[in-house]
Amino acid sequence: MSPTDTDTQVQRPRVEGEREQEILDATMAVLAEVGYDRLTMDAVAARAKASKATLYRRWSNKETLVIDALRRLKGQSEVPDTGSLREDLLSSYCGAGGVTSPEATDSFMAVITAIAHDEEFATAFRRDVVGPKSETTRQIFERARDRGELRDGLDLDLVSPALAGIVLHRKFMIGLPPDPDTVAAVLDQIILPAVLAPTPDA
Amino acid sequence: MSPTDTDTQVQRPRVEGEREQEILDATMAVLAEVGYDRLTMDAVAARAKASKATLYRRWSNKETLVIDALRRLKGQSEVPDTGSLREDLLSSYCGAGGVTSPEATDSFMAVITAIAHDEEFATAFRRDVVGPKSETTRQIFERARDRGELRDGLDLDLVSPALAGIVLHRKFMIGLPPDPDTVAAVLDQIILPAVLAPTPDA
Repeated sequence: MSPTDTDTQVQRPRVEGEREQEILDATMAVLAEVGYDRLTMDAVAARAKASKATLYRRWSNKETLVIDALRRLKGQSEVPDTGSLREDLLSSYCGAGGVTSPEATDSFMAVITAIAHDEEFATAFRRDVVGPKSETTRQIFERARDRGELRDGLDLDLVSPALAGIVLHRKFMIGLPPDPDTVAAVLDQIILPAVLAPTPDA
Repeated sequence: MSPTDTDTQVQRPRVEGEREQEILDATMAVLAEVGYDRLTMDAVAARAKASKATLYRRWSNKETLVIDALRRLKGQSEVPDTGSLREDLLSSYCGAGGVTSPEATDSFMAVITAIAHDEEFATAFRRDVVGPKSETTRQIFERARDRGELRDGLDLDLVSPALAGIVLHRKFMIGLPPDPDTVAAVLDQIILPAVLAPTPDA
């Protein structure tokens, strides 16, 4: 059916490059509008002006399509290393795909209800989307600990996701969109006073 | 159609007391299973073994039904006042309807996706469900400030929802169910070190 399927080999083009990105962008747009539970491959195909067959050639179901779209949002893969916990966290959280990005927070809201009742999707989301973000933050805290910036006795499993939790909660439950000023205020009022080692002359 | 509509006045019984609570319980059960977007009055009526007409006599639409069910979960209306910020927060968060209650966290997950695209429901949820919880925590922090427990310069709008944010984020994004030990650890590792005034001999 596709115009490019007319050669004698009926060799279907791979979905890649710009076309792939267009489909992933359409996925994010539909996801933000209706949420994961009500997203259909049909709706994404229509939005991307692609055939459903094209989508299924690349993604076997909506779970793999959505996870793939969300992974593209994760932004920088390098862990910031400025030598300061505060600057590393600001750089990580306020960059592309960070909690100040509306695309990121909208996409999280779009999947949370599904996560509660779709164990398979929840596992993939936590492993492939949340996992790399958590790992980046964890490394930032570990480097700060190794530099002697942190006080003794901190549980990094508890402390390192706290900034994201506070900022996303304000968005989800209170309706306040996160922005870099909010991230900085949460750092300066809560996270840094809680975790930094006392300065030598205190 | 209802068996109780047979008297000559065709006076319909009010939905109240035990019957009302059964319908609200059915609402919470359906909500946890499918989320707000996919919840229907039909499904709640079937679960509660009630007619749809019975539901509509009391609630004009699913929004008012769900908000009513969520408000019943909010637990104690009195603000704890033990004389200690730590004990007040533990009491408030670990009591009925607090963040350690699976009913509360499941119900939040069930509505967050809808909140992103249903402005009217979001407004009602934030005003009638989140609002009273936020107000309780805010009062706990204000009392602590008035007792001199808090350090100077704190932004209570930022600080008072932080505990809920950290605990709910662990549930939503990481998949770790909140429990009283977690609430205590977040208090002792993050919130209290961030907000308490230095002790006099420090």
